[in-house]
Amino acid sequence: MSSAVSDTLIRLGSEFHRRGWVLGTSGNFSVVVDRNPLRLFITASSMDKGRLLPEQFLEVDQDGRNTQGTTARPSAETLLHIAVVRVTGAEAVLHTHSVWSTVLSDIHAQAGGFFIEGYEMLKGLEGIETHEHREWIPILENTQDMRALASQADALLRRNPDVHGILIRQHGLYTWGKNLDSAARHVEILEFLFESVGRRRMMEPGIHK
Amino acid sequence: MSSAVSDTLIRLGSEFHRRGWVLGTSGNFSVVVDRNPLRLFITASSMDKGRLLPEQFLEVDQDGRNTQGTTARPSAETLLHIAVVRVTGAEAVLHTHSVWSTVLSDIHAQAGGFFIEGYEMLKGLEGIETHEHREWIPILENTQDMRALASQADALLRRNPDVHGILIRQHGLYTWGKNLDSAARHVEILEFLFESVGRRRMMEPGIHK
Amino acid sequence: MSSAVSDTLIRLGSEFHRRGWVLGTSGNFSVVVDRNPLRLFITASSMDKGRLLPEQFLEVDQDGRNTQGTTARPSAETLLHIAVVRVTGAEAVLHTHSVWSTVLSDIHAQAGGFFIEGYEMLKGLEGIETHEHREWIPILENTQDMRALASQADALLRRNPDVHGILIRQHGLYTWGKNLDSAARHVEILEFLFESVGRRRMMEPGIHK
Amino acid sequence: MSSAVSDTLIRLGSEFHRRGWVLGTSGNFSVVVDRNPLRLFITASSMDKGRLLPEQFLEVDQDGRNTQGTTARPSAETLLHIAVVRVTGAEAVLHTHSVWSTVLSDIHAQAGGFFIEGYEMLKGLEGIETHEHREWIPILENTQDMRALASQADALLRRNPDVHGILIRQHGLYTWGKNLDSAARHVEILEFLFESVGRRRMMEPGIHK
Repeated sequence: MSSAVSDTLIRLGSEFHRRGWVLGTSGNFSVVVDRNPLRLFITASSMDKGRLLPEQFLEVDQDGRNTQGTTARPSAETLLHIAVVRVTGAEAVLHTHSVWSTVLSDIHAQAGGFFIEGYEMLKGLEGIETHEHREWIPILENTQDMRALASQADALLRRNPDVHGILIRQHGLYTWGKNLDSAARHVEILEFLFESVGRRRMMEPGIHK
Repeated sequence: MSSAVSDTLIRLGSEFHRRGWVLGTSGNFSVVVDRNPLRLFITASSMDKGRLLPEQFLEVDQDGRNTQGTTARPSAETLLHIAVVRVTGAEAVLHTHSVWSTVLSDIHAQAGGFFIEGYEMLKGLEGIETHEHREWIPILENTQDMRALASQADALLRRNPDVHGILIRQHGLYTWGKNLDSAARHVEILEFLFESVGRRRMMEPGIHK
Repeated sequence: MSSAVSDTLIRLGSEFHRRGWVLGTSGNFSVVVDRNPLRLFITASSMDKGRLLPEQFLEVDQDGRNTQGTTARPSAETLLHIAVVRVTGAEAVLHTHSVWSTVLSDIHAQAGGFFIEGYEMLKGLEGIETHEHREWIPILENTQDMRALASQADALLRRNPDVHGILIRQHGLYTWGKNLDSAARHVEILEFLFESVGRRRMMEPGIHK
Repeated sequence: MSSAVSDTLIRLGSEFHRRGWVLGTSGNFSVVVDRNPLRLFITASSMDKGRLLPEQFLEVDQDGRNTQGTTARPSAETLLHIAVVRVTGAEAVLHTHSVWSTVLSDIHAQAGGFFIEGYEMLKGLEGIETHEHREWIPILENTQDMRALASQADALLRRNPDVHGILIRQHGLYTWGKNLDSAARHVEILEFLFESVGRRRMMEPGIHK
């Protein structure tokens, strides 16, 4: 992959860490290298996303295996990235893990998701041209069985082709885009919306169920 | 327009982005170039306000048309800027889009606005000399019909000549000033007041309607 | 006054602005130059505390008059600073204006103040050696009559010689110290305590009156 | 101790201060130098952790006495650090003092602690491999008797060998790790979890007891 891509991912990691979205070693980022056959450029497992180094990325094939014979281990959640790029056609996938997404993913878990509606900021999501839009934020139960989670994400995205992100319960956000800039904008837009929805609830805790 | 103005707007964009007031590609900024006939210097459509470039500004006439024959597209909300500078006599208009303004603009939408009263910080608004002041924050329903919105803003400002800002529901703040510094101070003052009013509500959610 | 003092005040202004404590042109800072007769080094009126310049300070006498014949206007709240240094013996006074202090000063205004008790962080206040301490935070009603406010502060401090700060309703904090470092630490400590008390209330809004 | 260690501690202090975790002169940091007999490298008493200098560290023995004959006074909480490294085998101990930890340590004091459960971020704690984990956060009553507090911490850690941190009521967090990086990651992870738990409560204040 070109060093421009890893430079951008390193910059995003540093910025997202500063904003509290990839603390600890949480989060992982990927970009499609090729589609025939599928190859992904992805962050290695367990790295501090706030201080990524060029050697902390690797390439994986369609089964999530390191294609380059190095010993670097791909992120445990590689299969989820692969499911997303396959079903959505996205060229970049970003997984972040903010406080607001974590809390909302728990509060709305039983309903399987929640709607965000009426916000002008929704227009920052690809293809949305008006605030008069109801964006469904689906939530998957968390599991350490990544194969199962990837398969659930695959099915969910086929049933909900219009969503721009998925929450994993108490675990954070997956979003994507037609390129890395678009995916990064989706993180910023969705985080804004989560914080707005969250603070709205705090002001009127009684009227929500 | 002098490059000093675009330098200041670039700096404001970067600072406002860092403070969460112009995320995604939200927000837009304008400065009056001439009044006879009216010409505005304004941010181009859909730019990231956190990383504005000198070529991402353009000049528009009183109908919001690019006067310079370049292909840059003016912000979709240019007509609102024009309405504001015409009715208020302001020399600079700043549109921002924070979480607090977004949430409050929704909570108080049915009442058409809300009062902010008794805060010393109100004295940061042009012409206010005492905290014993009730500042009306009017709220307009959001719409993608910019011509309609500009016309409503025009009427609202004629009815309420003393306001220092307008909220668009779930969309954010328009404020202005006799120059760019004054407009930027109004953003900072109003954001402080919105956050104060918002946190006040969170501490006593029951006593508000 | 030595340029070291104005350098420190410029640095504090910039840092306090970044932390949201002196937005707009709020806040003002002073340091005692001499006590016989009293002379104060103080920020000029209406300056942006985030970007203070060396020429935005001046010296005033015991009546708050500019002693140097320059045209700079002392802060409108100079008389309050003078009352504080006289009664407490402090060598430096800092007035800040954060969201948390503003909101708490309103909620507790009718009681004339509130207690902060049991926090280890109280030990950051001069002379406090244990967390088993009840710190009274007195609140004065705000007024634009600075002579009256200074006189009330004077009386309040004589009645409550042990307090480390005063809130003015919906207006912010006055704190002080035996030197500038001590006063700056008091701002940081009190802001921490205000935020703790405020967030505590948000988690249990029902149990507070 | 090597200057690399003090460099890292200085960097952590600056970063933790910026994030609001070691305001005033709160917090203290230590690293094990030797175990036979025990020697700790620890921050001196009452320093501003945001601007630590190389000379603001010292070495203490197993009784918390300065081993180097200098006049620097070890942190008052040295005995707590010693208890932690003895019982847990940790090589580094970090004490921080954030708003969220302070507030939660008060709300749950009567229960002696609280559980954090189901969060993916728990996997950032050493030895935790799944989100299906209940992490007990024990809380000790605060006291100025450091010998008593160290002895209670010692007993608590022997009864609860699996915990990754201890809260002192209205006083903040002690956490540790097999090295300094691990301890610093624990601070970041636990702070994320405290903020998540805290904001969760704010959204549903009624359903918590």
